[in-house]
Amino acid sequence: MEIEKLNTNVRHKSLKYLSQYGTVSYINKNNIIHNSNIILKKSKNKIVSPVIKADAYGIGAKVLIKILIECGYKSFFLGNLSEGLEIRKKYNNIELFILNCGQPFNIIYLKKYKLIPVINNLQDLKLWSQHCSKKDYCILHVDTGMNRLGINLQELKDLSDKTYLKNINIKFIMSHFTCAEDNNNLMNSIQLEELLNCSKLLKIICKKEIKTSICNSSGIWLGKKYLLDIVRPGAAFLGINPILYKKNPLKEVISLYAQITQIKEVKKNDTIGYGRTLTIKKNTKIATLSIGYSNGLSRLLSNTGDVYIKDKKLKILGRVSMDLTVIDISIFKSSEVKNGDMVEIFGPNRSLEKFAKINKTIPYEILCIIGKSNPKIII
Amino acid sequence: MEIEKLNTNVRHKSLKYLSQYGTVSYINKNNIIHNSNIILKKSKNKIVSPVIKADAYGIGAKVLIKILIECGYKSFFLGNLSEGLEIRKKYNNIELFILNCGQPFNIIYLKKYKLIPVINNLQDLKLWSQHCSKKDYCILHVDTGMNRLGINLQELKDLSDKTYLKNINIKFIMSHFTCAEDNNNLMNSIQLEELLNCSKLLKIICKKEIKTSICNSSGIWLGKKYLLDIVRPGAAFLGINPILYKKNPLKEVISLYAQITQIKEVKKNDTIGYGRTLTIKKNTKIATLSIGYSNGLSRLLSNTGDVYIKDKKLKILGRVSMDLTVIDISIFKSSEVKNGDMVEIFGPNRSLEKFAKINKTIPYEILCIIGKSNPKIII
Repeated sequence: MEIEKLNTNVRHKSLKYLSQYGTVSYINKNNIIHNSNIILKKSKNKIVSPVIKADAYGIGAKVLIKILIECGYKSFFLGNLSEGLEIRKKYNNIELFILNCGQPFNIIYLKKYKLIPVINNLQDLKLWSQHCSKKDYCILHVDTGMNRLGINLQELKDLSDKTYLKNINIKFIMSHFTCAEDNNNLMNSIQLEELLNCSKLLKIICKKEIKTSICNSSGIWLGKKYLLDIVRPGAAFLGINPILYKKNPLKEVISLYAQITQIKEVKKNDTIGYGRTLTIKKNTKIATLSIGYSNGLSRLLSNTGDVYIKDKKLKILGRVSMDLTVIDISIFKSSEVKNGDMVEIFGPNRSLEKFAKINKTIPYEILCIIGKSNPKIII
Repeated sequence: MEIEKLNTNVRHKSLKYLSQYGTVSYINKNNIIHNSNIILKKSKNKIVSPVIKADAYGIGAKVLIKILIECGYKSFFLGNLSEGLEIRKKYNNIELFILNCGQPFNIIYLKKYKLIPVINNLQDLKLWSQHCSKKDYCILHVDTGMNRLGINLQELKDLSDKTYLKNINIKFIMSHFTCAEDNNNLMNSIQLEELLNCSKLLKIICKKEIKTSICNSSGIWLGKKYLLDIVRPGAAFLGINPILYKKNPLKEVISLYAQITQIKEVKKNDTIGYGRTLTIKKNTKIATLSIGYSNGLSRLLSNTGDVYIKDKKLKILGRVSMDLTVIDISIFKSSEVKNGDMVEIFGPNRSLEKFAKINKTIPYEILCIIGKSNPKIII
């Protein structure tokens, strides 16, 4: 992206953020809406409850929920009580489900802020049953093989006092896939069957139909039989590819930029940066960028990563520092680059997915790190 | 740490944060003061200006500056304009130096908020000279071999119009070491000499003594001749070891904890977590923790890292997820662990330095990541 090509309002904000913070991140609202439409289409007529935990994977729960409410969503999953409260303060008429209510299980807090718990273990189930009436509803998390959170089928069967289950109002039961992004994995259908068996058992105990949910973003791409009653996409809204080894059916939403702070010439045998890890082999034109590992450019990229200026790929020289990074810009003539020029970390020239790969991680982890430390503009 | 052993106020806050956010980070004020005293002693009677850029390496610039002002410091270095403004809003009578003023160089902003620029390049030097009087002072950054930011000696010599330098009020000139943590590295004395040569040149041009500064935290441990007029420690306040291959003379300041969210038994041949990357070899008691890669436990630690409960080291099982991680707690009897128990990520049982090593990075990068995503208690 070149700053001259942005519309006036965005250019003004971008200049402000780049000069004052060093970085700017763009969130493409149209692409979120595009992804939402694909999700809704793939989800048929099921209920779609977006997951916006971990501050919406770092991009900002408040930013994302505003757009998703405009899209018509009415219920959301959050990671913990503090996230729930943040959203409740701003929105009163949406349903908020809390994936991990923390220990000790705080029913007073849940009721006070109209937060609906996902109940993960027998201890909390008993407390809920003892302190809540049928007008308070909850979600029951069933562990079908993830072995992380949730109560499993055997535990439900073994429960000596079934009144714990009879007394409560279960809105639906949910489980979580281990391998949903791989549609050839047999585990997907095993987990589905286990969840449906739980549903059958609970139907007998509670004497009512029990709704079910197992799909995260990737699950929605596994096929119709997995959709059940409620689906819970999160990363798909942000355009993270839901299917392993296949072309991404979604549009990426986030891009990250820094600026050139200084341009200089270095000579053969000069070294660059901390620890002098790189010795320059010939006279080289370098640019120092206003980004480092504190705002999303990992130290792993020292001497190996690259960035883009005017669609040209440029190598990182030496170690990435805390808020500065040096690159080779020898391919440009003096007239072609200047202080203040925008530098793409990921965006049109390199997807978040590819950027995550060179960081030896997944897009989710990159988002969680970069989201927290960079100012954002919704475009 | 065990929650029962904390004093009432800290215990109350810890319980709140652990149950609502999943994590809590402690900042030991006494250890910051201890480190400050060591820094002051090592710095003899030189001026000490703490560096609190990147939100004080992630732990919170406002948290740290409050303590450091109590310790008597009167001037501080910040990374960029937005950081400067945040502090200026709260404190009017301290000097704030801005390491990277951004592009375009915004003199109006600097003057409005009484922020003192570190001038890194000739272009900004000219602007400053044209728009400022002698009552406005600045710091000149001299590049002595880092090849990152700063003007070098040759550029100063080659400057055809020396009035740019004559017209401005230079508070001091500064440079930055490449290898200060290694006191055997010859580069340290080469850089010192280069800075002193700049000072001599400027003395002739400006017809006054020019003060100098080259020491970051590690520099202070290089010996008396490097101290010059002003030293600029940052990480040392947080107890990051300033000397390579030697025992840390400082006390660590930060620790990070999560809580047990759920305990369960898994059977031989069960798998754990996303991608089913770990198959359990024998019946095992596991605990799911309220921390993941969004709040400081890197995915790199999947299947290899460990954490501590009641001073016992416990292995991470399977992949670290976004806000949950599973560990093996088979060594404990049922009566010894329960939901809500505190889990040490780093602290008394493992230093931040060691934790950074298993994350294949340096303590600075860990702090920048964990600082932003966890609630903090000053103890």
